[in-house]
Amino acid sequence: MSSGTTTPVSRIAIVGVGQVGGAAAYALVLSSTASELLLVDIKIDLRDAQVRDLSDVAYSSNSSTRVRAATYHEAGQCDIVVITAGSKRTLGQTSIESTYRNISIVRNVVNAMKPFRSDTILLVVANPVDLLTSLAQKLSRLPASQVLGSGTFLDSVRLRGLMADRIGVAANSIDIYALGVHGDSQVVAWSTATIGGVPIDKSLSSENLIDRTGLAKECKHRSESIIRAKGATPFGMGSIVSSICSSILVDKHNVRPISHFQPEFGCCFSLPAVLGRKGIMRTIQMPLDSDEAAEIAESARKLRSELDGIQEDQ
Amino acid sequence: MSSGTTTPVSRIAIVGVGQVGGAAAYALVLSSTASELLLVDIKIDLRDAQVRDLSDVAYSSNSSTRVRAATYHEAGQCDIVVITAGSKRTLGQTSIESTYRNISIVRNVVNAMKPFRSDTILLVVANPVDLLTSLAQKLSRLPASQVLGSGTFLDSVRLRGLMADRIGVAANSIDIYALGVHGDSQVVAWSTATIGGVPIDKSLSSENLIDRTGLAKECKHRSESIIRAKGATPFGMGSIVSSICSSILVDKHNVRPISHFQPEFGCCFSLPAVLGRKGIMRTIQMPLDSDEAAEIAESARKLRSELDGIQEDQ
Amino acid sequence: MSSGTTTPVSRIAIVGVGQVGGAAAYALVLSSTASELLLVDIKIDLRDAQVRDLSDVAYSSNSSTRVRAATYHEAGQCDIVVITAGSKRTLGQTSIESTYRNISIVRNVVNAMKPFRSDTILLVVANPVDLLTSLAQKLSRLPASQVLGSGTFLDSVRLRGLMADRIGVAANSIDIYALGVHGDSQVVAWSTATIGGVPIDKSLSSENLIDRTGLAKECKHRSESIIRAKGATPFGMGSIVSSICSSILVDKHNVRPISHFQPEFGCCFSLPAVLGRKGIMRTIQMPLDSDEAAEIAESARKLRSELDGIQEDQ
Amino acid sequence: MSSGTTTPVSRIAIVGVGQVGGAAAYALVLSSTASELLLVDIKIDLRDAQVRDLSDVAYSSNSSTRVRAATYHEAGQCDIVVITAGSKRTLGQTSIESTYRNISIVRNVVNAMKPFRSDTILLVVANPVDLLTSLAQKLSRLPASQVLGSGTFLDSVRLRGLMADRIGVAANSIDIYALGVHGDSQVVAWSTATIGGVPIDKSLSSENLIDRTGLAKECKHRSESIIRAKGATPFGMGSIVSSICSSILVDKHNVRPISHFQPEFGCCFSLPAVLGRKGIMRTIQMPLDSDEAAEIAESARKLRSELDGIQEDQ
Repeated sequence: MSSGTTTPVSRIAIVGVGQVGGAAAYALVLSSTASELLLVDIKIDLRDAQVRDLSDVAYSSNSSTRVRAATYHEAGQCDIVVITAGSKRTLGQTSIESTYRNISIVRNVVNAMKPFRSDTILLVVANPVDLLTSLAQKLSRLPASQVLGSGTFLDSVRLRGLMADRIGVAANSIDIYALGVHGDSQVVAWSTATIGGVPIDKSLSSENLIDRTGLAKECKHRSESIIRAKGATPFGMGSIVSSICSSILVDKHNVRPISHFQPEFGCCFSLPAVLGRKGIMRTIQMPLDSDEAAEIAESARKLRSELDGIQEDQ
Repeated sequence: MSSGTTTPVSRIAIVGVGQVGGAAAYALVLSSTASELLLVDIKIDLRDAQVRDLSDVAYSSNSSTRVRAATYHEAGQCDIVVITAGSKRTLGQTSIESTYRNISIVRNVVNAMKPFRSDTILLVVANPVDLLTSLAQKLSRLPASQVLGSGTFLDSVRLRGLMADRIGVAANSIDIYALGVHGDSQVVAWSTATIGGVPIDKSLSSENLIDRTGLAKECKHRSESIIRAKGATPFGMGSIVSSICSSILVDKHNVRPISHFQPEFGCCFSLPAVLGRKGIMRTIQMPLDSDEAAEIAESARKLRSELDGIQEDQ
Repeated sequence: MSSGTTTPVSRIAIVGVGQVGGAAAYALVLSSTASELLLVDIKIDLRDAQVRDLSDVAYSSNSSTRVRAATYHEAGQCDIVVITAGSKRTLGQTSIESTYRNISIVRNVVNAMKPFRSDTILLVVANPVDLLTSLAQKLSRLPASQVLGSGTFLDSVRLRGLMADRIGVAANSIDIYALGVHGDSQVVAWSTATIGGVPIDKSLSSENLIDRTGLAKECKHRSESIIRAKGATPFGMGSIVSSICSSILVDKHNVRPISHFQPEFGCCFSLPAVLGRKGIMRTIQMPLDSDEAAEIAESARKLRSELDGIQEDQ
Repeated sequence: MSSGTTTPVSRIAIVGVGQVGGAAAYALVLSSTASELLLVDIKIDLRDAQVRDLSDVAYSSNSSTRVRAATYHEAGQCDIVVITAGSKRTLGQTSIESTYRNISIVRNVVNAMKPFRSDTILLVVANPVDLLTSLAQKLSRLPASQVLGSGTFLDSVRLRGLMADRIGVAANSIDIYALGVHGDSQVVAWSTATIGGVPIDKSLSSENLIDRTGLAKECKHRSESIIRAKGATPFGMGSIVSSICSSILVDKHNVRPISHFQPEFGCCFSLPAVLGRKGIMRTIQMPLDSDEAAEIAESARKLRSELDGIQEDQ
């Protein structure tokens, strides 16, 4: 006899539905990624307004996603939980105050959701993203492979896009990554950049040569210029979140530069990883050149000592 | 011999890229509706930040839409111009000040874009939408069929969606319209509502009967509750704009409740119309009951006299 | 604690992978409707070739659907089983031989799959579709709401499409149904046809009046002319199957004219029904005019007596 | 003043609408790639049946593509012409008879379409594909960059897909190409294969090592096994054609292994190229190892001498 399997239903929770959480939700509804989208926020009025505004999107676009308000506990039972709380970055975002505020938010939010469903994937979007992802990984008691951070994904997408515009090749035919600890110390892995699988040194003719330093700088400062004018980077980050959620729920096994736990360093930062229904399936070993590897290792050690400082703090 | 026809390229301009314009642009990039999306705003920093944030979306989602900043003149040469300037509604939005501010914005913006390409479609999203659409129609010197306003489209989408949730039928199997002048005097055309083409009186069993007054009220006040919490209804309105642009560019000939010129009344308000590449292909004559028709006519006459007042004002 | 819910996986089986089954599978892979597509056929070489050809489609289009060969028993454990075996129609398809051949095929196939998973939906595509659906419904021991036949869905789609082309309105803004027993005795329900929810008598101006008899005839004979040239109507039927599967798996609740059990007549034929994850959610009562209702009733009674004859036969 | 630009319309013609042409058309309608799809075939009944069967798909799926019958002359005025005539391969397809038959078909078809619109892209799908593409390139008098052949694209897609299944990484995160002259002498460019941009030697752990010879053989013989059972590889080839057409019309600039003119050898075969609205934008120079390069050069010289033989023949 049949085991009466129930209808497959997929659920994503978004914790924090300000600019970034709202834009992520909007992209998720438009693409019908999940059956249900649960919105969680301590600001009840904002949360309910987002539920209504996003339900109107679902009605208008014939999305198969239903949007509803939810509690922290319900969020912890979803397939994916996206933590955007604290993601509104201020220009002084690396300041100690902002970091401590976000540490406190992530700690409270993770604790409020515990215990998680055993196969829940946690995605941290707020900054400093690698520190907060490392923290969430410890606090959540979920397997390390199930806790991710947006890391340098958006930076990598920009690099690909800016290169694509300059050399006239589609972004999805280019592989190039920003890696390491997101922010000032992130590293562009030029040594492994390819176009259609061919190393850029060989595939680009001399007149197409890229100003590498300029491009890396433009990529790094792009967020800042957007934040200065509009307070956050909601659309770019929202579409990254939507893309990650789709890779997970559809079990796509794409290679993505995403923050995840690195046992060698005892903290989370971005290396390319295979992303599927169980989170990180495995890390792709990059044949970085020695300078690139050294820079990444140094910033990882720095992150680790920050992390130790915070934990003693508790 | 060949006439050397160039590559088909489609262009949409968004004039005013605040919350509503930004959300409309986001949906348009995610759906690759046009080849190019031109952003226009007097706030240069905001405009440029939106170009960057939305370009990141294009890079991330492999959208085929390119986003760039543009002038008013360039906007007037696009296939579609969406005017969202002034669409940030305040709770006292029907106040005389806000109306006069938006009249002035639409007048300036339309004049700055003139002369339009002869087949440009103009879509007005700001409020009071029917008054501003009527005004834009006169000022633009475009054929009446090429000037549209969002009108009661979002209200109608909500009505369908709220009914769909209550009776367990897909929203796109329900036809129901809010018609007339958008706002306090809009009318729900219950007399012509159908489910799968069957009048709701016949298709709904008695236990499924709808509280019509409650539903119409909920639909009318939904915007207010969203605006109170977040200042605008960007996601709902953004997806409506994206849907209208797609109907136009793909020449879909869908029936949509949209504000357009009614010769009998000398102003623009919403009746169902067939929407395609040339704008309004034709109005669908609704067999409204006499109360519904009378209410619509009365608010149309009121709108007309307001419009006359404004024009004498110039 | 968490209940360790496993990843949502959806499975569709196609039993019979000739022209129609192959085209249905192709559309399903291109649209990533299910996680897995299981192909079943007694011709092992054909089945394996289809698995390979369709896997190439999945690789090429980045579909998230995996295609594999399967047994009848595995098919009976899927979310949806599509029975296309026998769907290759010959021009003398209504002949007694062809009918008896298909009765025998459906009987064997349904018995080979039993017992079904308790929530499996069965979709019959072979002809005479209403007779075979009625038979499958009895043999399968599944609830009546879970056994469907393609019925007059393709005829209705054609009617809408041909009308759309003639009057310049999008097909999805038109509601019109062919109903009853698919084939010579099917009935076009002109009395309830609407455009944008408005009865066609009122929405169409006189110069747009439709030649109703001509259109009904064209719709009925279209299959014949296609079959004469290429042996089947694989593309039309394939896209119908894909659409029905999507309505079911995504639990869309669309209204669709589809063959399903009518208790009053003791057999299956097409009336508009709300289609979702549990199959037929409910039938929409159509206010047919008396001639239309009488014709449908008569052909239903005829079908019922054919069905009785077959069952005594067993 | 406005230049009265007309509505952007895109047109694809398919010449030869048997199994492969039909499947390509089906995928193109389902994805709404072009505004119009023109079908051309000397078998008028088959052509008209395909127009009807595919129009039913358009009606059912709300595709925005219209399908119609057309003449050779009309085909030559389209944005893209796909020549599938002769693509039904028999198992003895490399025999001299089959080659001469297809040479004759391509010659007749190309001549019947001349003169082409100056920016038309020609895509040859029949076999031996590189010979026929080379021939079409000469006969058409179109710029070399506008004449393409499916070449080793399907082989490359299979390689990626089979590797993806074996190593658990998404196909679109793998870059690997079959190159050179399609068929017995095609070469798998293992030396440049990457996963997420990382060379496979470095990204694959030893337990994941691939049986390269086995995989190359499986890829090469897969078509044969499909053709033996069903007479052609319509679905795989159809989705390749749809993908190429989309790269062209949307001007995507993807890197694709596709047959195109190689000045050094005076004939067409597959190397990775950037594909956009103007056809081949440029060839990507692959750093092949010397064995791979030598094999490709040898088969190219052989193809060139075959081509010379045919042309003297005329």
